[in-house]
Amino acid sequence: MPERFPLPPRDKKQLEAGTTLSPRFDANGLVTAVVTDADDGTLLMVAHMNAEALALTLETGIGHFWSRSRASLWKKGETSGNFLNVREMRVDCDQDALWLRVKVAGDGATCHTGRRSCFYRVVDVTDGEISLRDDGGETLSTTHHV
Amino acid sequence: MPERFPLPPRDKKQLEAGTTLSPRFDANGLVTAVVTDADDGTLLMVAHMNAEALALTLETGIGHFWSRSRASLWKKGETSGNFLNVREMRVDCDQDALWLRVKVAGDGATCHTGRRSCFYRVVDVTDGEISLRDDGGETLSTTHHV
Repeated sequence: MPERFPLPPRDKKQLEAGTTLSPRFDANGLVTAVVTDADDGTLLMVAHMNAEALALTLETGIGHFWSRSRASLWKKGETSGNFLNVREMRVDCDQDALWLRVKVAGDGATCHTGRRSCFYRVVDVTDGEISLRDDGGETLSTTHHV
Repeated sequence: MPERFPLPPRDKKQLEAGTTLSPRFDANGLVTAVVTDADDGTLLMVAHMNAEALALTLETGIGHFWSRSRASLWKKGETSGNFLNVREMRVDCDQDALWLRVKVAGDGATCHTGRRSCFYRVVDVTDGEISLRDDGGETLSTTHHV
């Protein structure tokens, strides 16, 4: 697997309709990675990948990311056992975002809070007042993990 | 609606378990916005929001974003009629990503290429060779639009 990917073509049509994966890494060398459950489509997490994380994900079939907070490569599930087994990867039109459809190993929690999904709070607007409401979903892991 | 949101609290527990929407805008003033179909969960697009776009989205119920390529506020669907009617918005644990579950108006295309989703290409790996494969999905709009 390459740790370098081809540079994005200047030609927009080639970028958007071609068969070459040429990710448009941002100034920090990252693309956005959206992770959903392969079975029911639930949005589980949003993370970032550098070229190395992307190459490792393609090579192993297990989700690897770049942790911006820890500034290090991050094999998701390394401490929890909740690895992300990638069933399908897709790329968007302008190749700056990836979509990983996964099966989560272990107890199924993706969020470090122990919940299945990081998106456990709904944004409510009532009479112009914005608040967050926990959806009351089950906590799968009792210990915080990454 | 505020065009300024409360600053994220220093206390991680408050950020992750509180009821206050306090988005962690990045150095460019943006958070990631993931857009899925409210009915079947299909990932339609990934975009970015600044505080103004977020406030307008909450106020109007229609998806507004910040176009990084055009460096301007972007009411999605303004030229195509394919507005994003937001059925539900969620925020992730550390409040740097939003999830919009939407009904797409007009002909239903979200991608500027006329397709329903921007994620129309699958990343295939065969014998270590990476390539992109168009999923052959229907093109809904015949003209490119934003």
